[in-house]
Amino acid sequence: MTALRIGIAGLGTVGSGVLRLLKEQGDLLAVRAGRPIEVVAVSARDRAKQRDGDLSACRWLDDPVGLAAEPDVDVVVELIGGDEGPARALVEAALANGKSVVTANKALLARHGIALARQAEAKNATLAYEASVCGGIPIIKGLREGLAANAVSELHGILNGTCNYILSQMRDTGRAFEDVLAEAQALGYAEADPSFDIDGIDTAHKLAILAAVAFGTEVDLGSVHIEGIRHIGALDITYADELGYAIKLLGIARRTPDGIEQRVHPCMVPKTTAIAAANGVQNAVVAQGNFADKVNFVGRGAGGGPTASAVVADLIDIARGCRVPVFGVPADRLVKATPRPIERRFGAYYLRLMVIDKPGVIADVAAALRDHQVSLESVLQRLRAPGDNVPVVLTTHETHEASMNAAVAQIAALEAVVEAPRVIRIEQF
Amino acid sequence: MTALRIGIAGLGTVGSGVLRLLKEQGDLLAVRAGRPIEVVAVSARDRAKQRDGDLSACRWLDDPVGLAAEPDVDVVVELIGGDEGPARALVEAALANGKSVVTANKALLARHGIALARQAEAKNATLAYEASVCGGIPIIKGLREGLAANAVSELHGILNGTCNYILSQMRDTGRAFEDVLAEAQALGYAEADPSFDIDGIDTAHKLAILAAVAFGTEVDLGSVHIEGIRHIGALDITYADELGYAIKLLGIARRTPDGIEQRVHPCMVPKTTAIAAANGVQNAVVAQGNFADKVNFVGRGAGGGPTASAVVADLIDIARGCRVPVFGVPADRLVKATPRPIERRFGAYYLRLMVIDKPGVIADVAAALRDHQVSLESVLQRLRAPGDNVPVVLTTHETHEASMNAAVAQIAALEAVVEAPRVIRIEQF
Repeated sequence: MTALRIGIAGLGTVGSGVLRLLKEQGDLLAVRAGRPIEVVAVSARDRAKQRDGDLSACRWLDDPVGLAAEPDVDVVVELIGGDEGPARALVEAALANGKSVVTANKALLARHGIALARQAEAKNATLAYEASVCGGIPIIKGLREGLAANAVSELHGILNGTCNYILSQMRDTGRAFEDVLAEAQALGYAEADPSFDIDGIDTAHKLAILAAVAFGTEVDLGSVHIEGIRHIGALDITYADELGYAIKLLGIARRTPDGIEQRVHPCMVPKTTAIAAANGVQNAVVAQGNFADKVNFVGRGAGGGPTASAVVADLIDIARGCRVPVFGVPADRLVKATPRPIERRFGAYYLRLMVIDKPGVIADVAAALRDHQVSLESVLQRLRAPGDNVPVVLTTHETHEASMNAAVAQIAALEAVVEAPRVIRIEQF
Repeated sequence: MTALRIGIAGLGTVGSGVLRLLKEQGDLLAVRAGRPIEVVAVSARDRAKQRDGDLSACRWLDDPVGLAAEPDVDVVVELIGGDEGPARALVEAALANGKSVVTANKALLARHGIALARQAEAKNATLAYEASVCGGIPIIKGLREGLAANAVSELHGILNGTCNYILSQMRDTGRAFEDVLAEAQALGYAEADPSFDIDGIDTAHKLAILAAVAFGTEVDLGSVHIEGIRHIGALDITYADELGYAIKLLGIARRTPDGIEQRVHPCMVPKTTAIAAANGVQNAVVAQGNFADKVNFVGRGAGGGPTASAVVADLIDIARGCRVPVFGVPADRLVKATPRPIERRFGAYYLRLMVIDKPGVIADVAAALRDHQVSLESVLQRLRAPGDNVPVVLTTHETHEASMNAAVAQIAALEAVVEAPRVIRIEQF
């Protein structure tokens, strides 16, 4: 049977992984896909760089966007990254020419996914993006096909391996955030500019994509509430452990009667949950279907191998002739959802204060919570240092985020409270 | 667009779940599938029985096999069960008539899967069976499509919810196997004749199917080594916990240089693993891909809702026009694998003895292990009762199953050993 001919743009970690995978087990893939998958053209920044795969048989293009115009390219594999520039130009041009696209680009999907889906549909082309969320975990397929019979009401997950690695290391070693981040950068687990990961932006991109697939709503990145992990202290990790929780940066999406809630922030989750057990660079996603009940997917969320596995799985689907609507339903059937602001969250909270150790402080804090109808669950003041600063940790019963915010503002204004209060939401899944 | 017209045979828990699902969210399904899914005919044992779905608009057939001949049925949904009789007759007749089949029948797939796959291919029909393994977990799709780019070297999982429920209850309550089984039967979690579940046969069916999909080998149920959980005592659960393990009935399949290993037996697994954390009626599967690395799927393995979710996901695939080879590659490309007997297993063992408490017994036991080059890791004798019977628990370092068998035979023959030794394999995944 005729080969599926692909052009690859971007030969970094993932692109090299794809080349290696296609080379190492091309025969196996051909049997599974029903035909060979053949790289006919590539484009990357540095032609001279040594690479795993054999590129002698394929054309080199200096301009990646040129791949969209190559007559013998059936599928463009976009591994450049970034939501604008050559990545976007290439994907748009390829779809305009009726070529299918496989991409690992979450930023592009999160910002322009709906427009691109419409373009793909108009040309009967496939736009596949399994590799854009959770690397080696087949989560797009799991939601869009595996759970296709379900109305999904909620999903949550660890969507960024860098943050999960940092938080796991902080817990295992007791070290501070900055220390562990610096080490992760030295090891190549975190970028030189780590903001995209540790400030939750990457997680937000992935969450917005998953929410669209799960709920049949338009991708709505702008409505995602985003907080990162910079303010998590070693103390918080210790207290969390004592209270029976692990701290994870989660993306959470919920369909509620008054709108779609999407939020990214550090959470305390019970240590007994599967999500708490996913450590290091692992990713994990739990989806709640109305017939399947809870389904949990765990695996490696990044790296050349796992991401290449997802890219090539998409290629095999295309070779097999399987085409599913980009976000599970045709783009014009996606619903524009009402965003539900995080202020309406109803749940428990962890609050860490640094206070001057003197009589009456905890009474003032408790009074502030009471003033806003927030009910205390526990108070921990482990250290004594009369007249000096000590940490005090409180947990609340379930309450509204707006009430909690008001109470925290009042607490922050107390004279004895010497640092900005740290708040972490507690999630009982 | 024209509806996908289905005929359902069998309206027990799963069949009723399918009817309810199609009725409750038919509109959602139609958008996702690209066309409505319509039940045009049904067949079940008792026509008079009250059921969830509305059957007034569809024909009733007394003979399920008749569904295969109904001209307006596009897809036959076989939910009768059993590897022979009407289930097999119906599936064969439907495929012979070029109709696609969706089934939850693991026994049928495990025994006749290859022949049925050939038949389906010859007629360009689909044979879909997501519901046959792990209910609501999309594990067939996950392996066959999600991990299609990988050579899978190993998979293991909790494939039977009844056994997992019983073992979890034994651990949580400290009660004996027979007690918990009786309760499970009373609650409807276990059958009146529980042998199929607790003797590991159901797990073996599912394992044989998963191994075929994962390794591209012919389904080989006959080569699965099968042990059930009847001999697991409350004592074993307690000792496992003390040693840092949970006891789970696992199906394990491995591709090794000298053949395919398939085995079903109780295992001790480290409490920190995801597989140990899957409790109650949950199922879990871990697959090791050479590019994706470990991927873990956890969810509800049985019940009307989860199984219906899987049946309808298969129907949506068919409605969408997605067809993948039944076992991931065309049937004539499946390899006839060499089975690797369990005697070649290399791993650690837990050994529980009931011995007469007198000096020299442990020395004799240790000598028997030494005689067969089995290296002791730990010995626990918690109770003292001179002259009376006491339990002794030993764990070994990694050794060959054949050596262990020989050592155990020698130990069983010792005069001071008053009960058949209990052996549980320890698996460090």
